[in-house]
Amino acid sequence: MYSPRPIQQLYSHRQQFPALNNKTYFNYGGQGPMPQMAIQGIIQAQTNIQQLGPFGSQVNEWIQQEVAATAATVASELNVAKETITLTENVTSGCNIAMWGINWRSGDSLLLSDCEHPGIIAIAQEISRRFDVEISIFPLMSTLNEGDPVEVIAQHLHPRTRLVVLSHVLWNTGQVLSMDKITDVCRSNSQETQILVDAAQSVGMLPLNLTELEVDFYAFTGHKWLCGPGGVGGLYVKPEVRDNLRPTFIGWRGVITDNQCQPIGLQPDGRRYEIATSNYPLYPGLKEAIQVHQEWGTSKERYEQICRNSEYLWYKLTELDNVTCLRNSPPESGLVSFTLDTSQPQASQKLVNYLESQGFLTRTILAPDCVRACVHYFTLESEIDLLITQIQKFQSILG
Amino acid sequence: MYSPRPIQQLYSHRQQFPALNNKTYFNYGGQGPMPQMAIQGIIQAQTNIQQLGPFGSQVNEWIQQEVAATAATVASELNVAKETITLTENVTSGCNIAMWGINWRSGDSLLLSDCEHPGIIAIAQEISRRFDVEISIFPLMSTLNEGDPVEVIAQHLHPRTRLVVLSHVLWNTGQVLSMDKITDVCRSNSQETQILVDAAQSVGMLPLNLTELEVDFYAFTGHKWLCGPGGVGGLYVKPEVRDNLRPTFIGWRGVITDNQCQPIGLQPDGRRYEIATSNYPLYPGLKEAIQVHQEWGTSKERYEQICRNSEYLWYKLTELDNVTCLRNSPPESGLVSFTLDTSQPQASQKLVNYLESQGFLTRTILAPDCVRACVHYFTLESEIDLLITQIQKFQSILG
Repeated sequence: MYSPRPIQQLYSHRQQFPALNNKTYFNYGGQGPMPQMAIQGIIQAQTNIQQLGPFGSQVNEWIQQEVAATAATVASELNVAKETITLTENVTSGCNIAMWGINWRSGDSLLLSDCEHPGIIAIAQEISRRFDVEISIFPLMSTLNEGDPVEVIAQHLHPRTRLVVLSHVLWNTGQVLSMDKITDVCRSNSQETQILVDAAQSVGMLPLNLTELEVDFYAFTGHKWLCGPGGVGGLYVKPEVRDNLRPTFIGWRGVITDNQCQPIGLQPDGRRYEIATSNYPLYPGLKEAIQVHQEWGTSKERYEQICRNSEYLWYKLTELDNVTCLRNSPPESGLVSFTLDTSQPQASQKLVNYLESQGFLTRTILAPDCVRACVHYFTLESEIDLLITQIQKFQSILG
Repeated sequence: MYSPRPIQQLYSHRQQFPALNNKTYFNYGGQGPMPQMAIQGIIQAQTNIQQLGPFGSQVNEWIQQEVAATAATVASELNVAKETITLTENVTSGCNIAMWGINWRSGDSLLLSDCEHPGIIAIAQEISRRFDVEISIFPLMSTLNEGDPVEVIAQHLHPRTRLVVLSHVLWNTGQVLSMDKITDVCRSNSQETQILVDAAQSVGMLPLNLTELEVDFYAFTGHKWLCGPGGVGGLYVKPEVRDNLRPTFIGWRGVITDNQCQPIGLQPDGRRYEIATSNYPLYPGLKEAIQVHQEWGTSKERYEQICRNSEYLWYKLTELDNVTCLRNSPPESGLVSFTLDTSQPQASQKLVNYLESQGFLTRTILAPDCVRACVHYFTLESEIDLLITQIQKFQSILG
């Protein structure tokens, strides 16, 4: 059993994040604050590249090492081999790689939950349009407090369901899905039913072992719960399905060439889905950010502290008059969504605006209409207390 | 007629590029050195984002303004409206957007030159595989010193040629193509023959007016001749063809959503091809880099100085024993490729390695086997003289 660290240790850990100095932050699900080591890692890499190159044998070799080291560090958070990792610009790019890489046939079906991010829905719509693929939507939102998502998914699988796309942690409600059971259900539906997980909210939050989880594709970003720079994410592709997932957007990073510089095949590992030049200094930035978390504690310890914090926030919110948490029991994730019970129009947006004016960063969600406040493992109980006070102040102003 | 600036002005301009302090640089076609203002712009933007957010209404609004300002600055270099610009991660991503966005039919044809970059060839191969499209290659390399590329292209167009892909400035030989004449030839072939230009080596080198040029798609990067950060490029799509080019990889940046956060359409402009979160601090980095060049001179003035420098390098190389420039007349671009006349194996690679060990950065090209040295408008004649001396030294060592 994990016991919380002395508060002084937490204070000193938090001092590594400059963004936490001048505000009270609850938008980890939007973007995590970067630790100073990560910012410094980017600047040092940029300086090093200008010093050695920017283009030459020596600097290009150094960059290749950094790329490999970053993939290895990311892999360590997911408990997978480095070779399964593709570095991408963001989570949506990872989802695009998986969704466009499937050899769709007319009449195939794609199953989504009713809580997915609009970017993912847009990919599904375009694939449906191009390949005559049917989109099915299953009602996940209504299972937040009762019912079983696994059963609902099972009811919506068809023999022609080629791909199920869903989030491990739902960005709107904070619901955590039992991915192992969902994988079992999809496996037993058809050999051809694959699973793509939108892991935007789970990587850096949940303790993960993708080698055991058996999902086919797991797309994530480094700039939310991992607190890395925006513009670096990744995709895990299960080794057994790699050969059947063709790259779509492709470039020199994904191919091997002969002595005439002609492409003659794909990279044997996750690099086959990488395209071309990225801003390589961002990679050590992500690597440093992950190391800051790993030095604090294991992913299990961090997750337990996230849950402790979200339970505290949830409990305090439920004590307020005219506030309803979407969940009627403590959350299993760091995302806590709630509504204001008022007839005032646009109350959620007004609360978020008021909070931002007071230095408290939260966000609205449109569907379902609510306010989302996120807590990380390094969130302080005193921050949560202050947020609660501000919500009460807003309510008294709103009347 | 442009007259060169006093050398003192050039020295002081060059001091803005830290990478030029400790080496003699000839790899502008690989990656340009970043001006200090661009490096500083990135750091300031990163700091600002951490200060305001990293995620909240205020910071998100600031980021949107920076994105728009960057697209506008890029557009000013191409002489096009901001709405025609899509910001991408690199030139290859821009080529992917254009090549995958076409509504390919079985039996269509795709025409490439024999000098294109392996990343582009790889895209063509995958499209050929997926959509049963035929790839034709036309011999461009042999027209470097004689013959007419426009005629050769005309000979290779078929009624079913849907897309011609070629570079404005060839990355291996430095050849510059008459894009206006090529556009005419393609237009008269078929209403359905479109042109995608790989502009990796032309943006930041040639004076451009894409509004007049009438190409359909022009994909470029900010990190070569524009000297911006790696990881930011763009794609110009002619407004008249935008509605027929569907986005393939897609995300929240490309779509508009309703009040339930459901995607209901595409952005009306070039943003429809943008995907999701990028490293936004890089955008002001590119903007600052472009401004450094624009403050020095017009794109015409910069190009004239590039040609003056490449002529000087070409002339000095032709004077050397046992060195042959690929071109038998002065180059029209900043890329100067040459071979060593020796029976020694891997002479090009050995020369490039030797030069790098002496602080002179050049690169090898595999097809045709040669060494490539690039000059920018701010390259010094004295740098060229020193390079020539080093090549002579190498020759005397090689024996």
